[in-house]
Amino acid sequence: MPIPHEVFRPKSVAVAGASSNVDSPGYDYVRAIKEGGFEGSIYPINLKAPEIAGLTAYASVAAAPTDIDLVISCIPADGVLELIEQCRTKNVRTIIMFTGRFSETGEADAIALEAKVMQAAADAGIRLVGPNCMGVFDSTSGLSFRPDLPREKGGVAFISQSGNNSVELMLHGAARGLRFSKVVSYGNALDITEADFFEYLADDDETTVVGAYIEGTRDGRKLFAALRKCSERKPVVILKGGRTSSGSRTAASHTAALAGQRQIWSAALKQAGAVEVTTFDDLIDMLVAFAFLRNESRQQTADSRAGGRAPSPAAKPRVGVVGGGGGRAVQSADVCEEAGLAVPKLPSEMREALRAKAPQLADWVDNPVDQSILAGSGFSGARILDMMLEHPDFDALIGNVGEDWVLGRPDAAERMVTLVDRFVEIGKKSQKPLAFVLGEADSLDESKWRAVAGGRQRFIDAQLAVYPTVDRAARSLARFLER
Amino acid sequence: MPIPHEVFRPKSVAVAGASSNVDSPGYDYVRAIKEGGFEGSIYPINLKAPEIAGLTAYASVAAAPTDIDLVISCIPADGVLELIEQCRTKNVRTIIMFTGRFSETGEADAIALEAKVMQAAADAGIRLVGPNCMGVFDSTSGLSFRPDLPREKGGVAFISQSGNNSVELMLHGAARGLRFSKVVSYGNALDITEADFFEYLADDDETTVVGAYIEGTRDGRKLFAALRKCSERKPVVILKGGRTSSGSRTAASHTAALAGQRQIWSAALKQAGAVEVTTFDDLIDMLVAFAFLRNESRQQTADSRAGGRAPSPAAKPRVGVVGGGGGRAVQSADVCEEAGLAVPKLPSEMREALRAKAPQLADWVDNPVDQSILAGSGFSGARILDMMLEHPDFDALIGNVGEDWVLGRPDAAERMVTLVDRFVEIGKKSQKPLAFVLGEADSLDESKWRAVAGGRQRFIDAQLAVYPTVDRAARSLARFLER
Repeated sequence: MPIPHEVFRPKSVAVAGASSNVDSPGYDYVRAIKEGGFEGSIYPINLKAPEIAGLTAYASVAAAPTDIDLVISCIPADGVLELIEQCRTKNVRTIIMFTGRFSETGEADAIALEAKVMQAAADAGIRLVGPNCMGVFDSTSGLSFRPDLPREKGGVAFISQSGNNSVELMLHGAARGLRFSKVVSYGNALDITEADFFEYLADDDETTVVGAYIEGTRDGRKLFAALRKCSERKPVVILKGGRTSSGSRTAASHTAALAGQRQIWSAALKQAGAVEVTTFDDLIDMLVAFAFLRNESRQQTADSRAGGRAPSPAAKPRVGVVGGGGGRAVQSADVCEEAGLAVPKLPSEMREALRAKAPQLADWVDNPVDQSILAGSGFSGARILDMMLEHPDFDALIGNVGEDWVLGRPDAAERMVTLVDRFVEIGKKSQKPLAFVLGEADSLDESKWRAVAGGRQRFIDAQLAVYPTVDRAARSLARFLER
Repeated sequence: MPIPHEVFRPKSVAVAGASSNVDSPGYDYVRAIKEGGFEGSIYPINLKAPEIAGLTAYASVAAAPTDIDLVISCIPADGVLELIEQCRTKNVRTIIMFTGRFSETGEADAIALEAKVMQAAADAGIRLVGPNCMGVFDSTSGLSFRPDLPREKGGVAFISQSGNNSVELMLHGAARGLRFSKVVSYGNALDITEADFFEYLADDDETTVVGAYIEGTRDGRKLFAALRKCSERKPVVILKGGRTSSGSRTAASHTAALAGQRQIWSAALKQAGAVEVTTFDDLIDMLVAFAFLRNESRQQTADSRAGGRAPSPAAKPRVGVVGGGGGRAVQSADVCEEAGLAVPKLPSEMREALRAKAPQLADWVDNPVDQSILAGSGFSGARILDMMLEHPDFDALIGNVGEDWVLGRPDAAERMVTLVDRFVEIGKKSQKPLAFVLGEADSLDESKWRAVAGGRQRFIDAQLAVYPTVDRAARSLARFLER
């Protein structure tokens, strides 16, 4: 049964268990949906409060003035059966059940109640998201589950069995430039499952890349089919939680998930065409790769290879790297090669172009380019990156800002802007996958944080792929090019 | 021949090629040493300028008013032979040669000049650091090579064949709490080599942990002996640059280093007792581990194991993890187990203690502790961490702040302080290795950056080990416990 459109695009929403305590989920939902720009009716449901977050509250779902498409339940588990009864009278299509303490507790009573809830909802023709979940974010409708989520519209969708994980992914993803179409935290997946969401997102024109955090599934065959369909149309990146024995045990008490065998999962994900990652950082890195890296020159490069200095088709992708000092150049070469990329020598045409202007560098500078030996040569790292962009010997590129040197200069802030802007200009026109590197904006020194965060913002505004280290950029490029 | 003490503790320093251009190394050296609190004489050497960075300048080394212990050379390579002649007349013990463009360029003339420089220095009884290096930082004498290096005294020494790398290590290390005794960038290692520095640091009472970035060596046997001696006395962590073919080629043009075979290096480092890492982040993580993690309960734990529920001595170290929501708990279990740690279930004594106060949690909560289910239970994550500290079933601990949840609360800033302070209190008394996790202070949002950077500062001030992700904490704990 397909997911009702109203899960993402309801005309009216009620928050059962809405609260005027500003430090509670029952307040956060109301405020988040209101501030998210939701244009339909929002009904906070609370026995006593006349208004919540500036909106008129109602004593019960039944007391709301109109029918309701979507109800978000923040009430305790023992009130849910009664809530479903009321929802029936208001023609509710879907309930998002933030309410938890069901099968994930492992307790017999709670498991039995969960089964009753499922039955009652089915009898009433109501679909359930959750229980034990944060629910749904949609950047177009304004539906949301926390007031501080980034609201810019974009093509990345994220499906998460964990609520906090979906918040973390959105916040840290936004700091890397990701913009979201739809985000779902689906918890115990009692009714609507991860497979249903993959199925939905496969057909969703607003979504170009899909990420997911999954702990377990109730129906592996259905998930596999949905995943395959989805990843035939757009890249899908999956972090599977519960790969180990203790992880699997923890998943059971988190979302009552049966985590299953690691090898079986990995094989199935691969066969379905999804990209599996094992850490949260890798998840973000690969979403950044699929959201921002371009590879429009693939055919062109293949052609030029066929005509000229072509290695075999099975050859490793060849990366050109610019930026950082000499020690960083050595380390960049190491991590690129270890990630499965080839690091070719600078091609002779580029050497001759250098010789004309900077003869002392022509036989010395190489790939990766040591930025520190360019001073006074008339060639900047950016200019060499630009030459690599045009040269058929490179399939992928890395442009490293090398901010630690920049930050030591008296004009650090302006220099950072100039350097980043030149990189951004090159990034915008690149047809090859080009990953930029700008260290984490993690300095405890405010002026350094400002300079780095400002530089990062410029890459992000241009929707370019920026990584905090060369090795993360290299690994992401290599995996991106595998697909 | 041992390193002259004056390399780190000169009574007088001259900077040959000092410059009044504030955007030049010749200015940076003078300013860095002056602002570093160096108490001896500082002589900027410049043909024309009467003063540089507020200090009287002299037209030549020979013109300086007293003998000179240490000269830093920023002049072009073709002036170095003349400089050595002048240094001889001033009883100079050591020259730090920032001057580059010698053998690393691969040019015959430059290689020949380097050999002449070595011979001239030897004839004059002068030792050389470099050429092609940044030189020496000493937090006690105030010697330095860049004005923005962290100056707090501490026990970490770092030896680097790369100049920029030493700057990056100090800046990013300081943001993680590392405080330095001595840092050396030694470049081409023409005279004084990395082996000499290991030898020196083995005997250096101010140094408790040694890190190094090495591209190649001229004398593997000498290096091995020095490394072994040093790592018998204190932990040594080594990042070897030039592990791959392209990395090795790049090292040759960076410091004229012969990078050698990767397998031989790894085997030798292991045999010498050093810890090898392959990325810059790992290098910092392991220095943080050895600088801050304690393991005073090792014997005690071994005893308790012998007496009670002891697994075999070859058993994996058992880690207890607290913090983050349910999805994070699952991921924490996975990454800990994948790092080689065991993640045991919560011991029954702890369950019973929980039952007394929070019966609904007693059979549900487990290790890793899902912070989100503790709300209202009377038990905080910190309190459970404290219980793990006392319990013999845990050999190591991870306390995760889980800041993404905290930052969504209305009182985020105060809550962060309270939570971190409670963790700091536990960290200070822990006899077990206890790693904290607080995400990168990488938010582009100023208030979030302030909250996270402020929290990080509190861990750092207490000199506790703090990691940006649970997986980095887990891998560092596992490697720390291997030693």
